[in-house]
Amino acid sequence: MNLTGRQLINGTDSSEGNHTFQAVNPSDGTALPIKFYSATTSEVDQACQAASEAFAAMQKLPFERRAAFLEAIADEIMALGDALGDRYCAESGLPRPRFEGERGRTCAQLRMFASVVRDGSFLEPRIDHADPDRAPMPKPDVRTMMQPLGPAVVFGASNFPLAFSTAGGDTASALAAGCPVIVKAHPAHPGTAELVGRAVLAAAKLTSMPDGVFALLHDDGYEMAQQLVQNCAVKAVGFTGSFRGGRALFDICAARDEPIPVYAEMGSVNPVFVLPGALKERSEAIANGLAGSVLMGTGQFCTCPGMVFGSGSEFGQFCNTVKQGLSGKDAGVMLHQGIKKSFEAGIEMLKEAGAIPSSTEQPDHLTQASGVVFEVPGDRYLQGEAFQEEVFGPSTLLIDCSSRDQMLEAAEGLGGHLTATIHGTEQDLADNSDLVDLLVQKAGRVIFNGFPTGVEVCHAMVHGGPYPATTDSRTTSVGTMAINRFVRPVCYQDFPDAALPEPLKEANPLNLLRLVDGVRRRTP
Amino acid sequence: MNLTGRQLINGTDSSEGNHTFQAVNPSDGTALPIKFYSATTSEVDQACQAASEAFAAMQKLPFERRAAFLEAIADEIMALGDALGDRYCAESGLPRPRFEGERGRTCAQLRMFASVVRDGSFLEPRIDHADPDRAPMPKPDVRTMMQPLGPAVVFGASNFPLAFSTAGGDTASALAAGCPVIVKAHPAHPGTAELVGRAVLAAAKLTSMPDGVFALLHDDGYEMAQQLVQNCAVKAVGFTGSFRGGRALFDICAARDEPIPVYAEMGSVNPVFVLPGALKERSEAIANGLAGSVLMGTGQFCTCPGMVFGSGSEFGQFCNTVKQGLSGKDAGVMLHQGIKKSFEAGIEMLKEAGAIPSSTEQPDHLTQASGVVFEVPGDRYLQGEAFQEEVFGPSTLLIDCSSRDQMLEAAEGLGGHLTATIHGTEQDLADNSDLVDLLVQKAGRVIFNGFPTGVEVCHAMVHGGPYPATTDSRTTSVGTMAINRFVRPVCYQDFPDAALPEPLKEANPLNLLRLVDGVRRRTP
Repeated sequence: MNLTGRQLINGTDSSEGNHTFQAVNPSDGTALPIKFYSATTSEVDQACQAASEAFAAMQKLPFERRAAFLEAIADEIMALGDALGDRYCAESGLPRPRFEGERGRTCAQLRMFASVVRDGSFLEPRIDHADPDRAPMPKPDVRTMMQPLGPAVVFGASNFPLAFSTAGGDTASALAAGCPVIVKAHPAHPGTAELVGRAVLAAAKLTSMPDGVFALLHDDGYEMAQQLVQNCAVKAVGFTGSFRGGRALFDICAARDEPIPVYAEMGSVNPVFVLPGALKERSEAIANGLAGSVLMGTGQFCTCPGMVFGSGSEFGQFCNTVKQGLSGKDAGVMLHQGIKKSFEAGIEMLKEAGAIPSSTEQPDHLTQASGVVFEVPGDRYLQGEAFQEEVFGPSTLLIDCSSRDQMLEAAEGLGGHLTATIHGTEQDLADNSDLVDLLVQKAGRVIFNGFPTGVEVCHAMVHGGPYPATTDSRTTSVGTMAINRFVRPVCYQDFPDAALPEPLKEANPLNLLRLVDGVRRRTP
Repeated sequence: MNLTGRQLINGTDSSEGNHTFQAVNPSDGTALPIKFYSATTSEVDQACQAASEAFAAMQKLPFERRAAFLEAIADEIMALGDALGDRYCAESGLPRPRFEGERGRTCAQLRMFASVVRDGSFLEPRIDHADPDRAPMPKPDVRTMMQPLGPAVVFGASNFPLAFSTAGGDTASALAAGCPVIVKAHPAHPGTAELVGRAVLAAAKLTSMPDGVFALLHDDGYEMAQQLVQNCAVKAVGFTGSFRGGRALFDICAARDEPIPVYAEMGSVNPVFVLPGALKERSEAIANGLAGSVLMGTGQFCTCPGMVFGSGSEFGQFCNTVKQGLSGKDAGVMLHQGIKKSFEAGIEMLKEAGAIPSSTEQPDHLTQASGVVFEVPGDRYLQGEAFQEEVFGPSTLLIDCSSRDQMLEAAEGLGGHLTATIHGTEQDLADNSDLVDLLVQKAGRVIFNGFPTGVEVCHAMVHGGPYPATTDSRTTSVGTMAINRFVRPVCYQDFPDAALPEPLKEANPLNLLRLVDGVRRRTP
C-alpha cells in the first residue's frame, strides 16, 4: 500500500491544505518518505459533518454489524503485513518485537470489543414494569439502556503508535459503543496512522458501515486539534499524552457552549513502596525487577515507576542494587527529539530540586537516553513539589524515608496516579493497611509485589486514576470497561413493545442479562 | 425541635459569622422566625476538613452500617412530625399534601439507597484470575470494584425542599456511595434544611457514623458556595436549579487545579410532539392532561412540558382545548419572589420573540402566578432561539408546524432536554421512527402517551439528559443509578485474599453478583 499523506474523510482522500510535514526516523534523524498535509478548517468540518451523519446511520444497524466491523479492522491490520512493521519501526524507533507485541494487543483489543458488543452487558438494560393499579398514581413502564454519546475524537499517542492510536483502545471502545471516530494522527508516526486508517476504511467498506464512521486527520501543530474538539458535532474526546496537552484539551472542551467529556490519560509517576519484610526477604530481586520496569521501552510507558519509597538500612542496599541494575545498560532510542529534550529537562529539574543522580551523562544524541537513578532523603522530598512531577523516560527517584510515619506522610501528600505499588510480605501488608487505604484514594490500580508496567487488557483492568493522572477518574482507557466512557443512559417510558429497541423488548430477543424489576435475569 | 439558624459542622452547631438572613413566607411575604447565619470561610474549611476525615473513617465501616444510617435518616425525618410540615409549607408556599408526598418520596429514596448498598451491585465487582503459566508473560490476578470519590457538596433545590435538598436524592446517593456530604441549604427554606439536617445528625449518632459524615451550611449569596466547591477536599458536586447557577458551578469546578465532576440538573423545556393519529383519537384528553401537567406545582417542576409541537387543522382545536384547560384556574403560589420575577421576564421574552399569549394578565402579587399558553407558527419558531429557553413556571408554548417535515426540523434543532414526549397511536409511532431516533439523541427520557411530570423513582429511571439539561449526560439524579455519580473503579492486582476488600475476596462473603473471568456469577 502506498502512502499518500492525505486526510481520510468520509471514505475518501483529501488534501486541501498547503502546509505539509514529514515524519522523522528517531534513530538517525532522517526525514521519512511522503509529505503529510495538515488538515484545513474545511476538512475538519467535513469530517465532523460526515461523522454526524454516520452516527445517525450507525444506530439503525444491528449490533452484530458493529462487532463484525471491529473484527474486520483487526483482519485488515494483519493483512498490512510487514509494510506496517517497517513504517512503525522507522517512525517510532521501537524494535520489531515491540511492533509484533503491540500489533497483537491492538488486534486483540479490537476483537475483545467485538465480543463486548455481542455480549451486550455494556448496554445495562433495565426494565421496571408498569403497575396500572398502584395508588395514588399508576406506575409507568420504564426501560433504560445505554446509547452512544455521538462522534468521538481520538488523539494518537506518541508512545503507542498502534495500541493507543488510530485503531487503538480509545477508537475500538468508541466504535464499539456506536460512536463514529475522528482520529487526530500523532505527527511522529503519520505513516503508521495512514496505513492503519486505510485498514479501518477497508473494514468499513467490507462490513458496509457508513463512510463517515471513521476519519483520519493530520497536523504537526495544535490549531487543527483545537478546531476539531470545538466542533459542535463532537461529543467526547480520548487522549493519551502529556499533562499539558491533556489539560489544554480539557479546558477547551469545558469552555465549549456545550461542554463535553475529555478522557485524557496524562502523566503519572506511579509510586512504589518497598516495605521492611520485603527488603529483608528479597531486596535484590525487587531492585532488579524495578530496574527492568524503569528501562522497559526506554521508560516511555505511562506506568513507568518513577518514585520509590523505603526506609531503614536495608533500603540503602536496595538503592545500590537498583543503581547497578540501571548502570551500564545500552542507551535506548526515545520516540522523538521532543521527548528526549523533555527527559533532559526533567533530569535538570530533579537535580535542581536536590535529588542526587547516579550519573550525569546522557548520550550526545538527538533521541538516545540512558537510565538514571535519583536519590533524595525523605525530609527533602517532603519539602519539594518538583519531586512529584513526571519525568517521562528511563529514570526513577529513590526516596529514603526516616520512618514509617514519614512514608505515610509522603503517601498522604501524593497526587493522583495511574498506579501505586507495594512490595512486602503478607505481614507487611497487614501491618500497613493504612498505607493501602491511602493508595486506594490516590491511584486507579494498586499492585502488590509486581511492577506497574505491563497493563493487562481484561475485564477488571483500570488504567485510570484521580487527577492529574487523568481528567476523569470515573473511567479506564484499558479493558472492557473503557466502553462506558462513550455511552449515556436513555429511558423509554410506556413505549409499545414494537417501538422499543431490541435490548429492551419484553421477549429479550438478544438474550441479554437485564435488571428486571430489580432482579438480574435473562428470562423474558 | 427549636431552630437555631446555625451551621451544622462535625456534629455540632457553629455560628461564627455576623451576616444573617431570614426565610420569607411566599404566600404573604412575611419574614419567618429565626435568623440564619451565613457560613464563614473558616466554617467552610472546617466542614471540608471534617468531611475529609470522615471519608477515611467511613471506608473502614461495613456496608451494613451505611445502609442502617440511611434508614435511620428516614426514621428521624418521620419523627420530626408536623413541625417539619409546618415549616416546609411556610417556607415554600407548597400545600400540605405536597409536603406529605415529598416527605414520603424522600424517605423512600433513603430506604431505596439503603437496599442499593446492601445489594452491592453498584460496586460492580470484577475478577480476572491469574494464569501464571501464560506465555510470554504470566497473567496477574486483577480485581476491581467501585470506591467512593470523596466528600461531595450538595445544593438544596428551591423546588424540592425535601426530595432534592438536605437529605434528598443527591445526598442519599452520595452517602450510599460512601461519600460524606456537605449541604449548602437553599436560602428559601433554611428552616426545613436545619430540621432535616438535625435529623441526619441524629441518625449519624444512632448508627455511630463519623461526625463529619454530614454538614449543613447556610448562605443567602453566592460567595460561600464558590469557596465550598473550590475546597480541595471536595471531590464532586450535586446541584438542581437554574441554568445560570449550574453552569457557574461547572465552570468554577472545571477551572480548579484538580477539576471535579459537577452533576448539575438545570433547565429543560421538555418538548412534546402530538402526532396526527392521537389528535384524531383523543385530542381533548391529551390537551387536558397537558394543561394539568403544566399547572402542576404551579409549573415549578424540571419536567414541566414547556413546548408542544403539532400540525394540521386538528392541532388548532387541540390548542384551543389546552387554552381552555389553563384558563380560569386559581393562581398558584410560586416558591419565592425571584422565581415569580423570572417567570414574568420569561413571559416578556416569549412575547417579544413573537409568541402570542392566551392572556397577558398575571396576579398583582409578589409570588402568585397564573397559567399562560403561548402560540407560535412553526416558521416563526424556527427563526427564534428564545423559544427554546426555559420559562420556569406554569406556561407552555404551542408550535403549529406546517408539515411533518417542519416538525422534524424543529426536533433536529432541539438542544438537550430531560424529557421528550410523543403522543400518538402505535401507527403514528411506527410512521415516525425518525422522530423517535432524534429525540433519543436529545433527551434522557422519552415518553409515549404520558406526561413528563411525575418522575418515577426506580431502577430504570433516567432524570438527566444532554446539555443544557444537565452538565453530565452520562448520569441520572433520580433512581438507583444515581449512585454511580459518586464512585470510581479501583483495581487490586495480585493482592493476597486477606488484604482484599470484602467484595473482592475469593469466597465472596457478601454474596455479590460479580463478573468473574467474564462470566457474571455469585459462586466463589
